[in-house]
Amino acid sequence: MTTQGQVITCKAAVAWEPNKPLVIEDVQVAPPQAGEVRIKILFTALCHTDAYTWSGKDPEGLFPCILGHEAAGYIVHSVFCLWHLYTLTGECWFIYLFFGRRIVESVGEGVTEVQPGDHVIPCYQAECRECKFCKSGKTNLCGKVRTATGVGVMMNDRKSRFAVNGKPIYHFMGTSTFSQYTVVHDVSVAKIDTKAPLDKVCLLGCGVSTGLGAVWNTAKVEPGSIVAVFGLGTVGLAVAEGAKAAGASRIIGIDIDSKKLDTAKNFGVTEFVNPKDHDKPIQQVLVDLTDGGVDYSFECIGNVSVMRAALECCHKGWGTSVIVGVAASGQEISTRPFQLVTGRVWKGTAFGGFKSRTQVPWLVEKYMKKEIKVDEYITHNLTLGEINEAFDLLHEGGCLRCVLKVDD
Amino acid sequence: MTTQGQVITCKAAVAWEPNKPLVIEDVQVAPPQAGEVRIKILFTALCHTDAYTWSGKDPEGLFPCILGHEAAGYIVHSVFCLWHLYTLTGECWFIYLFFGRRIVESVGEGVTEVQPGDHVIPCYQAECRECKFCKSGKTNLCGKVRTATGVGVMMNDRKSRFAVNGKPIYHFMGTSTFSQYTVVHDVSVAKIDTKAPLDKVCLLGCGVSTGLGAVWNTAKVEPGSIVAVFGLGTVGLAVAEGAKAAGASRIIGIDIDSKKLDTAKNFGVTEFVNPKDHDKPIQQVLVDLTDGGVDYSFECIGNVSVMRAALECCHKGWGTSVIVGVAASGQEISTRPFQLVTGRVWKGTAFGGFKSRTQVPWLVEKYMKKEIKVDEYITHNLTLGEINEAFDLLHEGGCLRCVLKVDD
Repeated sequence: MTTQGQVITCKAAVAWEPNKPLVIEDVQVAPPQAGEVRIKILFTALCHTDAYTWSGKDPEGLFPCILGHEAAGYIVHSVFCLWHLYTLTGECWFIYLFFGRRIVESVGEGVTEVQPGDHVIPCYQAECRECKFCKSGKTNLCGKVRTATGVGVMMNDRKSRFAVNGKPIYHFMGTSTFSQYTVVHDVSVAKIDTKAPLDKVCLLGCGVSTGLGAVWNTAKVEPGSIVAVFGLGTVGLAVAEGAKAAGASRIIGIDIDSKKLDTAKNFGVTEFVNPKDHDKPIQQVLVDLTDGGVDYSFECIGNVSVMRAALECCHKGWGTSVIVGVAASGQEISTRPFQLVTGRVWKGTAFGGFKSRTQVPWLVEKYMKKEIKVDEYITHNLTLGEINEAFDLLHEGGCLRCVLKVDD
Repeated sequence: MTTQGQVITCKAAVAWEPNKPLVIEDVQVAPPQAGEVRIKILFTALCHTDAYTWSGKDPEGLFPCILGHEAAGYIVHSVFCLWHLYTLTGECWFIYLFFGRRIVESVGEGVTEVQPGDHVIPCYQAECRECKFCKSGKTNLCGKVRTATGVGVMMNDRKSRFAVNGKPIYHFMGTSTFSQYTVVHDVSVAKIDTKAPLDKVCLLGCGVSTGLGAVWNTAKVEPGSIVAVFGLGTVGLAVAEGAKAAGASRIIGIDIDSKKLDTAKNFGVTEFVNPKDHDKPIQQVLVDLTDGGVDYSFECIGNVSVMRAALECCHKGWGTSVIVGVAASGQEISTRPFQLVTGRVWKGTAFGGFKSRTQVPWLVEKYMKKEIKVDEYITHNLTLGEINEAFDLLHEGGCLRCVLKVDD
């Protein structure tokens, strides 16, 4: 028995239309084509970007689709091959591999850097190492497969690998991890340590990495800096954690939910400000609190008014504000140009500036050495079949990350 | 005969009210107080910032005032002292100093870094080397005298040193160079090489330095970069010159006046785009022209719509846009946050990031070694009495800088 070259039918959560409950369907997953790999997803977390597209507010959202982009799984080559090897060697790990931990399910023609059996994190931000962006040394925003992933298809034939009863289902962010099997471009797969717990490190596929990288790569926070973090969800807490690791002297957390303070302290937040407790604009509160403004600020909500406040609470002369949150389509940021002329810098970050295939494995290593938190962000564990409840949880204040077991 | 400690009556161009012709008046200039120097201005140029405040559109503009901030002059100590020394030494340069080239006219108590006789450029951007800003190593925006210069007075007694028939006249930008004598804070005086021609290097007090510094200090343009310059006035041309010196491979000048092209070529512009020649938004024209966008852009006009275009013509992933122009009060810049999240950086600059007292002398040296242009920006020469004609010229396309001889 082999699945190589075969369509696999498995369970996936399909978003048939915006803002309607996801439906667990039997989905046909086509084999990978040139430059593609088929991955068995074992665990996936939910992120607000999934919820945003699902809500219908994302004008680029395509339906029906399979959402999900924060996951881990593995490649298996083929059943036949594995049994054959098992017969030859008798090593029980092949049984384990077959029954329990198939992650990169199979690889298409021309795929050389990952092999069946590799444990992987699918990455919505590709890294081809060949394009103008990858070669620039200035950005992580690989452009190789963007024209396909942006419209829910694969590069090779501009078609989807997913179908339900013959009806194509769009891919999402080049990952579509709310499925027991998915097909992704090989440039979107980070091979990680096989000892890493996949139910934890799946979080490094988006939120945690984004927050850490915003601090380390985009802002480059120095020791002694004063940092403001707007929004204390997973990304904001990862910013706080990254700032603490970078040696920030003060890490001011800003959130309209004061219940988040206790958790935030565990991630490095040293002071808490609730804008609702103040009549003054929050930027003025922070300027007063810091004798002129913060050195670095991070907007981790996706609210354009907060983005403005985050810029304007920065210190004249050098304060740098990084937009991390994703705003709703059509919304715009604004400020007086005087804010920039007097030395503030306005930046943004995507996936925290991390080069996915190169640096996600490094982040996994840091987690394995207990140098970065991951477990602490996981507040809930459910199964793929409970995905609608998981989305409900995501909108509650007490949920940071809910990890779904996909294989059940 | 000495003027030390005495009120000096001299000619100055007074802006009695917004948008009315300046009037050459007999102005009483009080002696410098602690931390101040009195300067004899020999040459001053006109800049659009003078015109902006004069127009009445600057909500922080105070009237009556003496405008002007791009000048050169010198300190003299006192007539008595000079004659005394002359008697002792017989060296004729004291006569020359007294009759022809008095520049820093006298110095107040506690002023140690400049002496009578020093040739100086008064700088609207101070550098005290003691405040939080100066010590930060991150900015040129010294804060020491800002609270006084921002409201047209001197720090020591929060009063003006100018009067006409007993009526106080406000200072402007801490410089007020449209006067034969002015009083400025000692932290606002750059001492320069006495061999430098003051009718030329006065331009280093604002426009030329701002353009060069925007490239060298704020953007830090690297060799091979593609640069876009919006607005080909003095500042824009200095940006082009700075970009050429930095090794930019393409320097694209953008202006709605195609007549500026020939001049612009002399300053390093390699390509010219007139937005009026295109139906598409100018940012799209530039993105198409550069296979994805420019590496660095500079807005040298002060138009918030152009500031947006300058950001949005930058290359995804790394393009940096620097706001150099000063927008009218109340106007705001805006863009989609996606522009920043996908790697563009929005910055601004004031006086090109140069530390005035430290680096203006260095710029003068560069000019003396013919490493930077200055003469080429001077299109007109008039006298202080012709200042209203000079302002008319400033609004004509053919005028870059008009230098006024103040001493006549």
